[in-house]
Amino acid sequence: MTKTLAVNAGSSSMKWQMYEMPEEKVLAKGLIERIGLNDSIITVKYGDEKEERVFDIPNHTEAVHVLLDDLKRLKIVEEFTEITGVGHRVVAGGEIFKKSTVVTPEVLQQVKDLSALAPLHNPANAAGIEAFLNLLPDATSVVVFDTAFHTTMPEKAFRYPLPKKYYTDYAVRKYGAHGTSHMFVAREAAKLLGKPIEETKIITAHIGNGASLTAVAGGKSVDTSMGFTPLAGVMMGTRTGEMDPSVFPYLIENAPELNDAQDVVDMMNKQSGLFGVSGISSDMRDILAAKATDPDAKLAFEMYVDRIQKFIGQYLAVLNGADALVFTAGIGENSQPVREAVLAGLTWFGIEVDPEKNVFGAEGEISKPTSRVKIYIIPTDEELVIARDVEALKA
Amino acid sequence: MTKTLAVNAGSSSMKWQMYEMPEEKVLAKGLIERIGLNDSIITVKYGDEKEERVFDIPNHTEAVHVLLDDLKRLKIVEEFTEITGVGHRVVAGGEIFKKSTVVTPEVLQQVKDLSALAPLHNPANAAGIEAFLNLLPDATSVVVFDTAFHTTMPEKAFRYPLPKKYYTDYAVRKYGAHGTSHMFVAREAAKLLGKPIEETKIITAHIGNGASLTAVAGGKSVDTSMGFTPLAGVMMGTRTGEMDPSVFPYLIENAPELNDAQDVVDMMNKQSGLFGVSGISSDMRDILAAKATDPDAKLAFEMYVDRIQKFIGQYLAVLNGADALVFTAGIGENSQPVREAVLAGLTWFGIEVDPEKNVFGAEGEISKPTSRVKIYIIPTDEELVIARDVEALKA
Repeated sequence: MTKTLAVNAGSSSMKWQMYEMPEEKVLAKGLIERIGLNDSIITVKYGDEKEERVFDIPNHTEAVHVLLDDLKRLKIVEEFTEITGVGHRVVAGGEIFKKSTVVTPEVLQQVKDLSALAPLHNPANAAGIEAFLNLLPDATSVVVFDTAFHTTMPEKAFRYPLPKKYYTDYAVRKYGAHGTSHMFVAREAAKLLGKPIEETKIITAHIGNGASLTAVAGGKSVDTSMGFTPLAGVMMGTRTGEMDPSVFPYLIENAPELNDAQDVVDMMNKQSGLFGVSGISSDMRDILAAKATDPDAKLAFEMYVDRIQKFIGQYLAVLNGADALVFTAGIGENSQPVREAVLAGLTWFGIEVDPEKNVFGAEGEISKPTSRVKIYIIPTDEELVIARDVEALKA
Repeated sequence: MTKTLAVNAGSSSMKWQMYEMPEEKVLAKGLIERIGLNDSIITVKYGDEKEERVFDIPNHTEAVHVLLDDLKRLKIVEEFTEITGVGHRVVAGGEIFKKSTVVTPEVLQQVKDLSALAPLHNPANAAGIEAFLNLLPDATSVVVFDTAFHTTMPEKAFRYPLPKKYYTDYAVRKYGAHGTSHMFVAREAAKLLGKPIEETKIITAHIGNGASLTAVAGGKSVDTSMGFTPLAGVMMGTRTGEMDPSVFPYLIENAPELNDAQDVVDMMNKQSGLFGVSGISSDMRDILAAKATDPDAKLAFEMYVDRIQKFIGQYLAVLNGADALVFTAGIGENSQPVREAVLAGLTWFGIEVDPEKNVFGAEGEISKPTSRVKIYIIPTDEELVIARDVEALKA
């Protein structure tokens, strides 16, 4: 029995989960929010207990110190040597990392060098990795890449219709994201289908605050909706998804608050999506509560559903059919109205939801027995995949 | 019997066709190319004759003079008063023009005011209109808008997931293009289906050097792949189509030849698509000739087909099924290999092409009798629609 820590560092947060492996038992989990801001929030759940504290944590290195101190103080571990493995989610693995990898000085440098592809995330990931290497020098550190699952995409899917040199000289291509989640739920779906994954075609819809859909053939990603960065694809909480590129020069020329392309991308990342259209909120629950009386919220909901339907349609074309359609992540798992609206427009494909199964709290199959495509709700578990990859790579 | 002239002015060209109406008989047609450049090329076809000359034509006003002189010199008309109507294709009608309209001074001003939405086209269209108004003051002038057919799109389709003010204050939305062509072939398809168009669902694929697909429900456009400008949607001869917007700041920062967003959009309009990926040509015929031996040409072909398949898939979702899929325009009408490759990946939908019908020169139905969706090749005829609209609007 060993203890393994799965770490998921965002630009200003650090989510973690401690497992007993190989039993895959969750011993504790926690979240540090507002790193680098005033009043950081430190939450730990262990057994039936929950502790929440607020104090300033200036950076990710300090966050790791706080986390490890808490593990000991709350007696989640007696000695740090019990922690034999630490797995780190890393957003951008570029074309280098096709699978999870044990951290070496060279690997750490490569993670830093890939920061251009995820400027908010990879530096934070690297800082977290370094802090753990210093404090837990005997544990095996493993990096698990959000992009790794998508490295199987064929070139026709990952290349953009740009002059070739922007791929060969500047690495501009589709990398995708949420790979760990898409992989996990596709494998779970294959189990539910009762088929070897090699014989399946599955569309996975990871719909949370960020959202992406993936076409999975034989267990491999063959196309995904996020692109060079996580801005592309479907409409999200605050992100546009795909756009007509020509709005860039038009907005820069005409909107006084947008001075250059970076301003436009920032607006498309942070002020758009559900929030931008509704003017109310980036949270689907707020949109649902408002849409009966607020036409902007109603429109935001309709656009959101429309974009998901379009990606399901296009991935049915990419795969030339599918055995299963999987909903996962915050909205995918929990929003009955979003699933209902999306599925209502896909009946021609023989996709038939059972309204008695598509209810709040549902899990597993929600399609009718006659449905040509099985519809599943499968809770994602990226931290478990990280812990499993650490376990598999430990000597 | 009256003579009606249909005029289709591009940024540096002017295509025209002279009809006897209401018989819809083509009396003559021609093309003036390289307007504003050296060695403009003036082609006229009439009866079995064809004349081609080369001399400098400095602007669209002068092009109209040359065209009218030719009509008389070649005895296509005896007197200009025989020409009772002139119809002009205009690219951008914005949200103002929902149908073809008789030109008044106010209408002409509005066409000019919409130039921001089509900076290369609307000024050229306006110059052509003014020249004809001066030279044929008694003819009825009509403007036929590329965007008019798409003004029936619901808001969920035409709005972008941007902050609302960019729509309300800056008119940033999807306008679409090729509307006259999509409308024409959708109506022809309804005739072939033998159904009232109100009862049909049709996907129209206008695939030429520029290319767009439209979802047509009950004869009305409900979604289309081109957007704010004709850069969006599928991959084209030299255009990217849809993109992850985040490549803009990345390319501006990293590629020395791209200094601002306008440079990037110019590159995406003129250096991308088939040409950019293959490095060979924007012409599908060249790509097809090269793809057996050139991996870049092969990839360009595969990407091109992939993007069309994805839009057919998404419009099947938008329409929740379709009665017919129509191929039109240069590539859609003439490229058997493109149609074959696109349709080969859509069999799960019950879309079944008959390989013996999908041959070079084919027209009409090319699907098997068992196909769930009829597949048609329908030659487009935008000039005929223009002439019909002129005829309908003449007092």
